[in-house]
Amino acid sequence: MATPPEGLSRRAWLATASGAVAAGLVKTQFDAVKLDAATLPASQETVVDPTEVPGRIVSEVGQRAPGERPVRLVRSTEISSSSRTPLQDLDGILTPSDLHFERHHAGIPDIVAEEHELLVHGMVDHPTVFRMADLKRYPAVSRICFIECSGNGGAGYGDTDIPTEITPQALDGLLSTSEWVGVPLSTLLREVGVREGASWLLAEGRDAAMLARSVPLEKALDDALLVYAQNGEAIRPEQGYPVRLLLPGWEGNAQVKWLRRLEITDRPTMTREETSRYTDPLSDGTARQFSFTMDAKSLITFPAYPYALPDRGWWEIRGQAWTGRGRITGVDVSTDGGRSWAPARIQGPVLSKCPVRFRHLWEWDGRETVILSRATDETGYVQPTTRELLAARGERTSYHWNNIRGWKVAADGSVTFGLGELL
Amino acid sequence: MATPPEGLSRRAWLATASGAVAAGLVKTQFDAVKLDAATLPASQETVVDPTEVPGRIVSEVGQRAPGERPVRLVRSTEISSSSRTPLQDLDGILTPSDLHFERHHAGIPDIVAEEHELLVHGMVDHPTVFRMADLKRYPAVSRICFIECSGNGGAGYGDTDIPTEITPQALDGLLSTSEWVGVPLSTLLREVGVREGASWLLAEGRDAAMLARSVPLEKALDDALLVYAQNGEAIRPEQGYPVRLLLPGWEGNAQVKWLRRLEITDRPTMTREETSRYTDPLSDGTARQFSFTMDAKSLITFPAYPYALPDRGWWEIRGQAWTGRGRITGVDVSTDGGRSWAPARIQGPVLSKCPVRFRHLWEWDGRETVILSRATDETGYVQPTTRELLAARGERTSYHWNNIRGWKVAADGSVTFGLGELL
Repeated sequence: MATPPEGLSRRAWLATASGAVAAGLVKTQFDAVKLDAATLPASQETVVDPTEVPGRIVSEVGQRAPGERPVRLVRSTEISSSSRTPLQDLDGILTPSDLHFERHHAGIPDIVAEEHELLVHGMVDHPTVFRMADLKRYPAVSRICFIECSGNGGAGYGDTDIPTEITPQALDGLLSTSEWVGVPLSTLLREVGVREGASWLLAEGRDAAMLARSVPLEKALDDALLVYAQNGEAIRPEQGYPVRLLLPGWEGNAQVKWLRRLEITDRPTMTREETSRYTDPLSDGTARQFSFTMDAKSLITFPAYPYALPDRGWWEIRGQAWTGRGRITGVDVSTDGGRSWAPARIQGPVLSKCPVRFRHLWEWDGRETVILSRATDETGYVQPTTRELLAARGERTSYHWNNIRGWKVAADGSVTFGLGELL
Repeated sequence: MATPPEGLSRRAWLATASGAVAAGLVKTQFDAVKLDAATLPASQETVVDPTEVPGRIVSEVGQRAPGERPVRLVRSTEISSSSRTPLQDLDGILTPSDLHFERHHAGIPDIVAEEHELLVHGMVDHPTVFRMADLKRYPAVSRICFIECSGNGGAGYGDTDIPTEITPQALDGLLSTSEWVGVPLSTLLREVGVREGASWLLAEGRDAAMLARSVPLEKALDDALLVYAQNGEAIRPEQGYPVRLLLPGWEGNAQVKWLRRLEITDRPTMTREETSRYTDPLSDGTARQFSFTMDAKSLITFPAYPYALPDRGWWEIRGQAWTGRGRITGVDVSTDGGRSWAPARIQGPVLSKCPVRFRHLWEWDGRETVILSRATDETGYVQPTTRELLAARGERTSYHWNNIRGWKVAADGSVTFGLGELL
């Protein structure tokens, strides 16, 4: 491992080598250097002492520290492409907006917000065009929630050909979390007057794919939002600037970006993206269609490939757990390949359809083992094993891979993807 | 108002002119354009149609939309300087990390995280040097909370010389909110063994000011954190990279950045920053010292100077409310200069020592008025009027200005800072 693998920041890379401590000083269980009172730290003097030189002054827009360069993992340079959030570099639940995952079918359109229009028509009393200034004038709602691509995590599914040298980012990086602000779709639908008999709507984007998805009216009237702000500021171009359909807890593809049209209908429109794509083939030859909701899932992001534990002792296993069905109620962690499980500590606030951080203190004895996590949500749903998910969906399914993930810790401390005995 | 005032984004500026709608179409109460079913929107065709050209592909790190350029308001180009968060451009509670306010006394030090050391010594059993890898190995905690400079908002205090053409950013922009992750200070203090009789600690920064503040041990053992992550990623250089002392709800100055030393003591050290500075002079010649906690405060961020309401009708008044004493329990809004008050809608989640968004739907009748907001927190504390705060603190106080703020709406829709009859 002489150079950082694809998608790994220099920081995470350096961390693998930082366990060594100055010889002769007392070490705590957590590896800090203890001094006798007369000893002074030395290395603060080995570079230019920042207490002796004036620093850089304030700026209009900040920059990351030079040593910190988290980047999205770009999977393709073709027009239909994706980029993944560097989950192993992040802590907390929020994703910086410039690191939010991307999935575009025809690239990011160049849209001037002041000229953008959203047409709401179909089975309505008053077909209406809304501009951004109109949308922003309605009472707003904000919520912190995740967006996950329904195609996230496929590399960790199946019983053969599972890669072992894969980072959390490459595995499950089509998951990101933001604070979103916008107008409830129910407000706009009340404004245009939905007609008797309407039950679906078609949402269409203003990109070159004109990506379009059918959404049940029930969801539209529940918690759907038309969002124009992300993490405080205007939504990013990659996320649908100037306005995106937000369907909390549902697959990302249905949350149409660069939204330009909502057509109220009495049936699903059966677009390409919900017939030939974004359906889940089953082993009996049928397919799950309109499988919108993202099921409960969890992922250990530390320790994970390519991190290597520098020594035995106490380590905090850290990860994220999320569900599209409401709140996470618990995460169990196994440090013995699934033979026993213990409840992890859940970091609040626990919000609906929003990831939680779980943390579990673990004393590694230096022997090879497998660490795993398993999420449970408020509906009682428990994240399934690979074997359980294979039995329900078969090998040909190509979306909604939420089976239990794990990492094999070798005796030399190296960490690779692997489930051990627990398939 | 021919050019955007200092600190105002192009977006907010353009918004003031966007009320005009195409003639002849039906307008709703919210100003959207209603079509009869045969009419199609025209302006989507006036620029290059983004549905007809492939868009930009994915990238490692994203950028804002070209039309969106929120910036911090830089107040000084001297080494002791500040920059302010563009509150009028933001919605939600979180501040993008690159727009978090700054206040430095000797600039931003250039620190390499891998070489940084934190010395904990004084009245402890085991004086210890912690490196960043050590700190990250301890069990972590995250929380979303605000940091506010104790000198925030002074331009809105007093009974004379109050500016009227001042933006929310210029008035109260030394306030920002992030998700912070780090190790509880109580964990480190347990590790080093605090000796009997200790009651304070000195926190010292590794900048050229070596800024140092005394903090009661009680706070250190309560909810203080040593934070190394901000909004998911490594803390920004301007916010104390690689590690900052976080004291939720307390004044920003005491939350020492670039933390290099904690000395456990049995009394406050009486540094320059807590004697000649960061004390509140009172009218009787004495001063409030160690006035750490930020009192409840609220600010309407929309509509606010230099926005001008384009027409009468329904508008949503929006703002933030926060308190260092726990949770906000309510925000009242007045749209008649303080004669009557109504409870605003509070956007959840309501977190301790974290701002909430408040929203209040208001039908403006086109006549001159003053809009005001007033926060109440879980201790029962109510944000005071200027007159009340003047009576308690006098005219010479120079920190902790949390008096009620207001905006005068003129008959032409222009908005300026002003309290009207309510001083």
